[in-house]
Amino acid sequence: MTAGVLVIGDEILSGRTQDTNTSYIARFLGALGIDLREARVVPDDQTEIVAALNGLRARYDYVFTTGGIGPTHDDITADAIAAAFDVGIDYHPEVLAALGARYRPGEFNEMRKRMARIPFTASLVKNSVSAAPGFQIGNVFVMAGVPMIMRAMLEDIAPKLRRGMPVAVETVQTRLPEGRIAAGLAQIQKDNPGLAIGSYPFCREDGNGVQLVVRGRNSAAVEAAADAIEEMVQAQGGEAQRLPK
Amino acid sequence: MTAGVLVIGDEILSGRTQDTNTSYIARFLGALGIDLREARVVPDDQTEIVAALNGLRARYDYVFTTGGIGPTHDDITADAIAAAFDVGIDYHPEVLAALGARYRPGEFNEMRKRMARIPFTASLVKNSVSAAPGFQIGNVFVMAGVPMIMRAMLEDIAPKLRRGMPVAVETVQTRLPEGRIAAGLAQIQKDNPGLAIGSYPFCREDGNGVQLVVRGRNSAAVEAAADAIEEMVQAQGGEAQRLPK
Repeated sequence: MTAGVLVIGDEILSGRTQDTNTSYIARFLGALGIDLREARVVPDDQTEIVAALNGLRARYDYVFTTGGIGPTHDDITADAIAAAFDVGIDYHPEVLAALGARYRPGEFNEMRKRMARIPFTASLVKNSVSAAPGFQIGNVFVMAGVPMIMRAMLEDIAPKLRRGMPVAVETVQTRLPEGRIAAGLAQIQKDNPGLAIGSYPFCREDGNGVQLVVRGRNSAAVEAAADAIEEMVQAQGGEAQRLPK
Repeated sequence: MTAGVLVIGDEILSGRTQDTNTSYIARFLGALGIDLREARVVPDDQTEIVAALNGLRARYDYVFTTGGIGPTHDDITADAIAAAFDVGIDYHPEVLAALGARYRPGEFNEMRKRMARIPFTASLVKNSVSAAPGFQIGNVFVMAGVPMIMRAMLEDIAPKLRRGMPVAVETVQTRLPEGRIAAGLAQIQKDNPGLAIGSYPFCREDGNGVQLVVRGRNSAAVEAAADAIEEMVQAQGGEAQRLPK
């Protein structure tokens, strides 16, 4: 099972806001055995959103979008998704009622009603934080950009997803420099073509080092490769530390 | 002037590592008047890197890549870029010499030499942190993924970039809910089609609110629109606070 993420928002591309939703979604999906294969960030522009979404939804089992479903003029995601799927869009009666119940008389204005606009054929994605829902249409899940609300929406989405086999991960850390263990690591990768072995150096105040990460769906093979990495590090004169999962 | 960012790395897509380079590049370019229009994250896979890079470099004035230029087997960016540009790749004598000088005799092994592989026709991007360079080929700048090194590379790149007119930004903050000011804000956006006005709600321990951000290249128009937003917020019974730049 594969997925793509589409982050929608000028505020990410201007650097005003640090996106943290992509990494949260990645970990959330990883636990369900769904691989995030690609992420894209596009501006609040319908043409850009439609093109990116249509590219992603044709390619992956699921697409998750974040951002652009609030009440203001720059929230254009629902309309863009309707355009991408070539369906109409209108106020959803159930959402209108739920939103209306949240406001005092006279406060449920036209802009707030925008949050009830849901493309035809879509089903609602609810959340425990806000009365404004996301929605699912085809293999696309449309979520809020505010992380707290986005995370609550993922809880609602999880039971609807087909799961894959979860990925097993083992991490070996050493203070040896990357260049000292690179040849041994390449050999272990070569011996294990079904696993993905990554090397991630770090620079910290207490010294530098590298984390060697083995990922794969065969947990015994992942375990064995991590053991091989530990032995290789020790053979190079380093200390190897297996990090907790 | 426009730009795209290509983040290369399995560790971002697994959620293991939070990408912060994109937002740093966005702010860095913004100060030079270059608009970041799109960002993509792809795995350590040559086919994916080549396809995404060729899409981005045809579309934007500049493309900035991060990640995958270290010494280990999963560092495949240089080869992928050479493939995307259909040029050869080999050890760069100047880089070999600079790297070689950093290591003790016998420590400059084959894997470390990989960091000296530079595509033909590319020029080097140096940095103050590491002897391993990035490179420029065509309109593409290839940088390290480690943020400290990536930032140092941007300092080397900056003088090579054609600049645009910087974007002026004004931010008005209010504790009113977004739905109360959405209609007034939409009108101000309508009155100022040349500006980009964004609405970004926040939830904090000291209470909720929204930041209204005006961006544009005409600083007087940005200033006037921010003034209009302040007046609109006050007319709605809220307090408006102009945030420092």
